Amino acid sequence: MIEFLQKAKEASGIIGNLDTKTKNNLLNTIADMLVVNAPMIISGNKIDIKNAKDNNLSSALVDRLFLDEERIEGMATALREIAALTEPVGKVIDGWITEDNLKIEKVSVPIGVIGVIYESRPNVTSDVAGLCIKSGNVAILKGGKEAQNSNEAIAKIIGEAIESQGLPKEMVSLLPDSSREGVNFLIKQDKYVDLIIPRGGETLIRHVSKNASVPVVKHDKGLCHTYVDIDADLDDAVEISLNAKTQRPGVCNAMETMLVHKDIAHDFIPKIVKELEEKGTELRGCTTTTTIANVTLANEEDWDTEYLANILSIKVVEDVKEAVKHVNKYGSGHSECIVTKNYENGETFLNEVDAACVYINASTRFTDGGAFGFGAEVGISTNKLHSRGPMGINDLTTYKFKIYGHGQIRG
Amino acid sequence: MIEFLQKAKEASGIIGNLDTKTKNNLLNTIADMLVVNAPMIISGNKIDIKNAKDNNLSSALVDRLFLDEERIEGMATALREIAALTEPVGKVIDGWITEDNLKIEKVSVPIGVIGVIYESRPNVTSDVAGLCIKSGNVAILKGGKEAQNSNEAIAKIIGEAIESQGLPKEMVSLLPDSSREGVNFLIKQDKYVDLIIPRGGETLIRHVSKNASVPVVKHDKGLCHTYVDIDADLDDAVEISLNAKTQRPGVCNAMETMLVHKDIAHDFIPKIVKELEEKGTELRGCTTTTTIANVTLANEEDWDTEYLANILSIKVVEDVKEAVKHVNKYGSGHSECIVTKNYENGETFLNEVDAACVYINASTRFTDGGAFGFGAEVGISTNKLHSRGPMGINDLTTYKFKIYGHGQIRG
Repeated sequence: MIEFLQKAKEASGIIGNLDTKTKNNLLNTIADMLVVNAPMIISGNKIDIKNAKDNNLSSALVDRLFLDEERIEGMATALREIAALTEPVGKVIDGWITEDNLKIEKVSVPIGVIGVIYESRPNVTSDVAGLCIKSGNVAILKGGKEAQNSNEAIAKIIGEAIESQGLPKEMVSLLPDSSREGVNFLIKQDKYVDLIIPRGGETLIRHVSKNASVPVVKHDKGLCHTYVDIDADLDDAVEISLNAKTQRPGVCNAMETMLVHKDIAHDFIPKIVKELEEKGTELRGCTTTTTIANVTLANEEDWDTEYLANILSIKVVEDVKEAVKHVNKYGSGHSECIVTKNYENGETFLNEVDAACVYINASTRFTDGGAFGFGAEVGISTNKLHSRGPMGINDLTTYKFKIYGHGQIRG
Repeated sequence: MIEFLQKAKEASGIIGNLDTKTKNNLLNTIADMLVVNAPMIISGNKIDIKNAKDNNLSSALVDRLFLDEERIEGMATALREIAALTEPVGKVIDGWITEDNLKIEKVSVPIGVIGVIYESRPNVTSDVAGLCIKSGNVAILKGGKEAQNSNEAIAKIIGEAIESQGLPKEMVSLLPDSSREGVNFLIKQDKYVDLIIPRGGETLIRHVSKNASVPVVKHDKGLCHTYVDIDADLDDAVEISLNAKTQRPGVCNAMETMLVHKDIAHDFIPKIVKELEEKGTELRGCTTTTTIANVTLANEEDWDTEYLANILSIKVVEDVKEAVKHVNKYGSGHSECIVTKNYENGETFLNEVDAACVYINASTRFTDGGAFGFGAEVGISTNKLHSRGPMGINDLTTYKFKIYGHGQIRG
């Protein structure tokens, strides 16, 4: 393992300096080869699917695992889209001349060696490989063991594509020891690995964050709120809340708790409850809410729970200040929304809520690299440092300062 | 402790939204009050100095601890300079309209609660407090126990200044439990603390980095090289190397190893060795170097050592490629320099060396917030993520996305 990581680190210098054309050719070659070799991937995938069924994995999980020609075409398309993105390396982010007449340039550079740990979907293997190639990083991939045969087939094709272009095979690898011990070893190798990105369930992410000595960008939890203010357009508020809760309840940017200003609660709550009931949403509410609509009484734990399901808790609040306080206490710093036509209340919420994405008058469901216009999404960071919120390919770079002198020495 | 941290976290929302004038008034008030109350600080400091001498601390350490009216004036001046910096919070870093007609603004915001752990110099207490106030962060400070009385006096005055302005006292505090256990507790409270900055010796920083679950921006080690290329201006090379090694040998941006191209080694090494000998530098060299000059034979450990002293190791290399390889193997990713008039070799070195600061034809001693023009320096990060290299006040901010809609929902 150490030798493998040493080689990865050594190769990162070469890989970080590949030119755009070389990287794009490789991405398009991988795309072509995935399509040509689809039968090989599918036969690996069939083994994974059979094992999953034998192990009684849920049908949702089996569906996530499943690959056919269409899904493989989708993987190829994603790689071609990554190739089409603007080059993320070598951007001059800032530049100036100092008092000593040194010219300083702050330039984007690859991070180095990135370990990505993920769960069932095998398409993540090619997506993440593509994002790392384009950003000049070495990718070490550890997928779910339930997708092992699919991932091995995909990685083999990627490796052949890399070799066909005469490039270092260290660019993309599966983690050689894919056991739990292998992962625990990897996340402590800060000498060789520059960043770990865990993608998947909260348990995985917690485990990695707690035990890693390599920096981790985590994507753990979305406990998102929508606050319907006294000055909300109630029709907008219904649409936005309904969308935030029900359009896809199992995702991190869906609403879990709705906060409602007390002066409009009697008008608004019956309207939204009617709509939510039609969508089959299970409703829980604070004491005041239970006097307005037929909902179960929520307990303290409800405010602290990311349901990831079609369940909503509703709380009536005094004003925007109480809404902000509730959000900052229970929210996960992901995506938070106020619906209002009031300038001051809007500003208060946007400024005082501590979250990656703060919305006024739009659904929190827009928190997404695609919707933000970043192209391929690396993930949604709930870190405050390095990257926060939706991460595009630029978030896989860091920077260096290049300093151009003419013999200057320090006085 | 938990209650203390909870309050700090709660207060961070208010502190993060203070306006520039309020923050600057506070900084200038603290500056004034430090000067007025200098006798109180000095009497605390006298106890620390007496203890230090009783405990036989080195005279260098006693000098670091020492405060007089002039040094307290210096602390006040530093605070006034921080007040004069451009407001770091609320900058619109980026902004665009999405395909859904959402207006997105990426805006700088404070990080939240920052714990700073440092060693002997008591002026760090007011410097760091000032940087955190200006950037809207809550500061939790843990100084060296040898400076405890000085730090308590300084913190008391800062607290009184905060109170005199009617601001929350949580803005700046000393860590209530200043024992080793207190520190070990603090660095694991990721629920309440957003960032830990350790400043000081390598042992302190290693301990914090290894044990923290709060993100750490570290400033650990500077093993810096200067490579004198075949096409170097040898007079420049002498000046730059001499400055990098001898102007202040005990600091992180000083040179530890000099690399010399083989074709100029016989010309250059005698020149620089003569100058270095005059400065009393202890010299060690590779086998080839020992045939050119009268230096001790270096061993493998020398290439891997940050001397922090007036010692230099010298190695003769084949070419710029070998220089880059040596630097990437042994360097600490801090500051690295090539001296050359050759365009290709300069580009190769600047692009392929993996370090925060890469120089061409200037001394690595310039790696410094002041020399870079950042104003007050937070430190020099050897992290690759969040901040890299010299950190100014902007490095104490993160960002949030503000999303302005008109009822948009996700389709």
